[in-house]
Amino acid sequence: MLPVVVVHGGAGHIPKERAENSTSGVCSAVRSAYLVLQEGGSSMDAVVEAVVQMENSPYFNAGCGSVLNVKGEVEMDAIVMDGKTLGSGAVSAVRNIANPVQLARLVMEKTSHACLTAEGASKFARSVGVPEVSQESLITEYSRMRWKKNLVPDANPVECQMGKMGTVGAVAVNKEGNVACATSTGGMLNKMEGRVGDTPCIGSGGYADNQSGAVSTTGHGETIMKVTLARLILFHMEQGQSAEAASDLGLAYMKSRVGGLGGVVTVDPQGNWAARFSSRQMSWAAAQNDTLHYGLYTGEHFRRSFSEQH
Amino acid sequence: MLPVVVVHGGAGHIPKERAENSTSGVCSAVRSAYLVLQEGGSSMDAVVEAVVQMENSPYFNAGCGSVLNVKGEVEMDAIVMDGKTLGSGAVSAVRNIANPVQLARLVMEKTSHACLTAEGASKFARSVGVPEVSQESLITEYSRMRWKKNLVPDANPVECQMGKMGTVGAVAVNKEGNVACATSTGGMLNKMEGRVGDTPCIGSGGYADNQSGAVSTTGHGETIMKVTLARLILFHMEQGQSAEAASDLGLAYMKSRVGGLGGVVTVDPQGNWAARFSSRQMSWAAAQNDTLHYGLYTGEHFRRSFSEQH
Repeated sequence: MLPVVVVHGGAGHIPKERAENSTSGVCSAVRSAYLVLQEGGSSMDAVVEAVVQMENSPYFNAGCGSVLNVKGEVEMDAIVMDGKTLGSGAVSAVRNIANPVQLARLVMEKTSHACLTAEGASKFARSVGVPEVSQESLITEYSRMRWKKNLVPDANPVECQMGKMGTVGAVAVNKEGNVACATSTGGMLNKMEGRVGDTPCIGSGGYADNQSGAVSTTGHGETIMKVTLARLILFHMEQGQSAEAASDLGLAYMKSRVGGLGGVVTVDPQGNWAARFSSRQMSWAAAQNDTLHYGLYTGEHFRRSFSEQH
Repeated sequence: MLPVVVVHGGAGHIPKERAENSTSGVCSAVRSAYLVLQEGGSSMDAVVEAVVQMENSPYFNAGCGSVLNVKGEVEMDAIVMDGKTLGSGAVSAVRNIANPVQLARLVMEKTSHACLTAEGASKFARSVGVPEVSQESLITEYSRMRWKKNLVPDANPVECQMGKMGTVGAVAVNKEGNVACATSTGGMLNKMEGRVGDTPCIGSGGYADNQSGAVSTTGHGETIMKVTLARLILFHMEQGQSAEAASDLGLAYMKSRVGGLGGVVTVDPQGNWAARFSSRQMSWAAAQNDTLHYGLYTGEHFRRSFSEQH
C-alpha cells in the first residue's frame, strides 16, 4: 500500500480550455512526488515537490498563475504540516516569491514559529536566501484578464469566482507510515489586500497527524474555515471512518451547515486514500503501487500503470 | 443558568506584583460583559466588551500592554466567532490600533472575508474610520523593560516567557442560547516580525458553535496550533463530554502529545462553563446568576454576589 501521494489542483468550475492542462499538471506533479517517495524520501519532501510543480505551472491558482487581489497584485498563502511532530509552517499574504510552500517549510524548520505574514515573511525569506521575484513573473495574461473582467461594475463575482482554478495541495504517506500535507494558493479572485483564507490556517487548509492521517483542502476559504474542514475530516477518521467516508462526511456537513462547496485529498497512515469533492470539478491525481489514478468530474477515476508509459 | 460570560487574562506564570491587577482586571471585564448580557445584548457584544476592557488595561498582553516583537514593536492578533452563523473575523500582525478585537469584529461584519493581515488590516481599519494610534501609546514601561531584558545575549527566553501575561479572551452565552468567543493578544515576547500565533487562527485561538459551545484559549501559540485546541475541546463536547471534562481532556492531550501548557475558558449553550488550565496560573472570572466567580491558581475558586458589592 505504501508509499502513496495524492494531489489536487483545486475545486471549482474549471474552464474547458484549461481542463486538459489542469489534469496533465496534477498527473505530472503526482508522478514527481511519487518518485521522491520511491527513492526513500520523506512524505514532507513528496508533498512539497508536488506543490512546487503546481506553483510553477501557470495553470493553477498558486505561485505563478495566482489570481490577483483587488489592486491587481499577487499575495499568496501556503502551509505544510508534518504528521510525526504535528509541527507546521505557514506563510500568509506573502509577495514576490516563486514558491510559498518552500517558504512555509522553512518557517517550520528554521524558526520557532508556525506562521509568518506579509512583510515579516518577506524579510524572513531574504534572511534565508530565498530569491525575490517580480510581481510580473507571477502574473499570467489569463489572471490579469480575469481580474479586469471582475472589476467592471456589472461583473458577476460568483460567476467569475466559479471560473477559478482553486488552491493546490498534496498529502502523502512514505514507506515508514509518516504522513504530511501541503497546500498553496493565490487566494480568492479580487480579494481585499491582506485577505488571509483557509490555506495557511492549520486545521482548515490542511492537517496531518500520524495517528489518523492527512488532509489538504480546496474551495471557498471563508466557508472551509467555518467548519475547520481538514481537522473535521480527521476527527471522523479518529472515530473509525475510512478516508473516503470521512472526506464525504466533512464535505456534506460543510454543504448542509454553511452551504459551501469544496474538495479534499485525504490519506490514512496505512495508505488508504481519497480524492473527494462537492464542487462540479476538482482536478486530482494519486500514485500508489506503480499506478497513476486521476480524474476531473464527479465519478471519474482513470487508472494507468506507470510502467505502461515508458 | 443564562446568561453567562467567562473571561481569561492569560495562562502562564504571573509575577506576584501583577497578580492583583490581573485578577481585578478580569473581574471588572466580566462584570461589564455580564451587564451587556443582562440588558439583552448579544453574546458577541459581551465578549467584545470584555476583551476591549482587557486590551485597554496595561496589565494584560493585548492592546496597550502587549509584549514587543524582536524589533521592539507591537504587532497584535485577534479573533471573534459567532456560534449562530459560524462566521468569524480576525486580524493578524496588525499595528497602531487600540482594540484589535473590534477590528476583528468589523472584518466579520463589513467584509466577505474572515481574516485580514498586517498592512491590509490597517488599510481596512482606516477605510472604516478606526482611529490610528501611535506605537508608543501601546507600549508600557514594563513591556519595554522585558523586551530589553530578553535581548541580552545570556537571557533565558523560557524564564522571560513564563513571566508573561498571556493572551486575553472571553466566551459567553446570551439569554437566547447564542454563544460567541473573542481572543486578543500581543503574541509572544521577542517574536519575529510578522509572527502569527494561534489567536487569529480559527479552531486554535477560539471557536464557537451554537450546537456545542464556545472556547477561547491561551498559552504557547505554536503548541496550541499543533492540536487545534479550541476545536478539539468542542469535539469532545459534541461527543457528550461536559465543558469542564472536555477542557481538561483537551489540555491533557496537549500536554501529553506535544508537551504544551495552556488554559481555556469554555461554555456550552445551556450555560455550563469552565475555566481550566495546565499552566501554573491563569487569571479568570465568570459571571452567572448574579454571582462573580474568579481565581488565579489551580483549585482556586472564589465566589461573590454582585448585589453584595453595592
